[in-house]
Amino acid sequence: MPVGTVGAVKTMSPHELKEVGSQIILGNTYHLYLRPGLETLKLFNGLHKFMNWDKPILTDSGGFQVFSLGKLKKLTEEGVQFQSHLNGDTIFLTPELSAQIQQTIGSDIAMLFDECVALPNTEKNLREAVHRSLRWGQRFFEVPRHPYQKIFGIIQGGTSVPLRLESLEGTLKLPLDGLAVGGLSVGEPHAEMIHVLSEIAAYLPQNLPHYLMGVGTPRDILEAVNCGIDMFDCVLPTRNARNGGFFTHDGLLNIRNSSHTHDQNPIDATCLCECCKNYSRAYLRHLFLTKEILGLRLATLHNLYYYHRFMSEIRNALDNGTFPSFYEMMKPRLTVAYPDRTERSSAEVFKED
Amino acid sequence: MPVGTVGAVKTMSPHELKEVGSQIILGNTYHLYLRPGLETLKLFNGLHKFMNWDKPILTDSGGFQVFSLGKLKKLTEEGVQFQSHLNGDTIFLTPELSAQIQQTIGSDIAMLFDECVALPNTEKNLREAVHRSLRWGQRFFEVPRHPYQKIFGIIQGGTSVPLRLESLEGTLKLPLDGLAVGGLSVGEPHAEMIHVLSEIAAYLPQNLPHYLMGVGTPRDILEAVNCGIDMFDCVLPTRNARNGGFFTHDGLLNIRNSSHTHDQNPIDATCLCECCKNYSRAYLRHLFLTKEILGLRLATLHNLYYYHRFMSEIRNALDNGTFPSFYEMMKPRLTVAYPDRTERSSAEVFKED
Repeated sequence: MPVGTVGAVKTMSPHELKEVGSQIILGNTYHLYLRPGLETLKLFNGLHKFMNWDKPILTDSGGFQVFSLGKLKKLTEEGVQFQSHLNGDTIFLTPELSAQIQQTIGSDIAMLFDECVALPNTEKNLREAVHRSLRWGQRFFEVPRHPYQKIFGIIQGGTSVPLRLESLEGTLKLPLDGLAVGGLSVGEPHAEMIHVLSEIAAYLPQNLPHYLMGVGTPRDILEAVNCGIDMFDCVLPTRNARNGGFFTHDGLLNIRNSSHTHDQNPIDATCLCECCKNYSRAYLRHLFLTKEILGLRLATLHNLYYYHRFMSEIRNALDNGTFPSFYEMMKPRLTVAYPDRTERSSAEVFKED
Repeated sequence: MPVGTVGAVKTMSPHELKEVGSQIILGNTYHLYLRPGLETLKLFNGLHKFMNWDKPILTDSGGFQVFSLGKLKKLTEEGVQFQSHLNGDTIFLTPELSAQIQQTIGSDIAMLFDECVALPNTEKNLREAVHRSLRWGQRFFEVPRHPYQKIFGIIQGGTSVPLRLESLEGTLKLPLDGLAVGGLSVGEPHAEMIHVLSEIAAYLPQNLPHYLMGVGTPRDILEAVNCGIDMFDCVLPTRNARNGGFFTHDGLLNIRNSSHTHDQNPIDATCLCECCKNYSRAYLRHLFLTKEILGLRLATLHNLYYYHRFMSEIRNALDNGTFPSFYEMMKPRLTVAYPDRTERSSAEVFKED
């Protein structure tokens, strides 16, 4: 799912999103609550009509942004008091308010409001967050909702497998339509993330879609699918695009590199996106050096196309029963292409797309 | 002609340009000489292939930017020495070099290299510029060129009608394919610009296209066509777009205005552009307030569509012999919509798009 933070996937039009293969996008409850706000969203009967997107929208609960972007003032059983990152307004977000905002947005999939903690963290903090999230989940379900809206629960517990399983057990008591794994890829090493996933994979119910939130690189995705994950959202393709980073199976190509100055080749000769079909690396580099918006657009378009094509290949392999060989073929290449960046801090992860 | 300063019409793809009705775009010789530079342009056999645009390109001579953007160091009979506005490099631009750069760009229409002066200015400076431009024009023609490239001359002379006619007489001695009026809309009042145009209109040869450089508002264009002008280029539609200004027959609509907060109407209900067909003022305002690039794109798209539609209406009226009544109908509306802004300084005009 491309991330459409505030009612637009950065640089892209809805029409272009469909053309690159987007089937569903993510909207951020926290950002949409601040801007355009509930009054405007109500007037338009939700985000779909406001932004002219007629395919599914998933909304996060707002929790992640509250704990990362806002200035946290108070965390109680009732909810979270924090200051808006835009104007300092005090906001009190509760499970009930999160549910109501997601109703007003009219998302097709809403996420339970949970407590997010950064990693690494203490066992005590992780346990408290798991238990509070379970209590908040029950309150979330008490809010009336559109019958079409699906609700996904979120498994927390950090890198503690016992806590993850406890969170899973509690979460599954709710009448859920899908199951998400939250609080990963927030600072821990790649290997630790995959370890946690592989440990809980066997316990994830087969009848629900499995969604790994905020992940990740092509390598992360390959490994996570291997653990049984079905869905992802991530700002990496769109955010890297705006920094001149083009995704390929051989790693992130930095178009600003002077080696591309006279390169008449496309980013990827095998890619069928509008960027690779029509533009050379030399021209793309020129657009970035001259700060032309078209450069940001073409990079975003290519990266989303790359991710969607990659997911499509994975789906085909799963459908054909060839995923194990696909996995073995891709793993060495993507491991080299996307080396572990353990130095990536939570602060970096927590940036707005 | 939309302005594609440095090999891209800001925010737009070539495909979108065609969809909004662009038949020809303008490239800036000065900017393209600095970036991507002649080596890259040669490698791609010119700008068309580099930027993936297969319709005509007109290039200015570089003179306007040299006199406005660069730090002018020395003006001699040979040419102009100036410092690059990007890195301070000393550059010596001559009529011959301008012709060679425009050859390398491979523009379909090249402009003679002339001396541009800001208005108001002294009669002496204006006369010297006219005479030097004529001598430079002769040297320009001595450079070998692609047979397909058309050459337009430029009439200078500021707001002095006698000087304009002298410039015209001299310019017409060259074997030109078109005739441009330069050095207007650079600080003088609207009425003065139209006065100059109307005085020289009768002397413009009917067999050549007449091009008014760097103009202007819809009102300017209506009046200039009434004086016999056929072609225009201007950054107004694209630059205003990026500031949230949407062109309409009733003036420039500022989408940031809070009156649009809950407005579900499009910018213009009679407009058939993708922006007006699909998006509300409320959403467009939201995009600008949240600094979403999609907002800049939709505004640019609308403004170019508006300008092209307006020119198309003018062409139809001319073809049908109904231009006089079209002019009388539109004049009062556009005069109110686009009041004279005599306070607009040359410095403001001289900004890069």
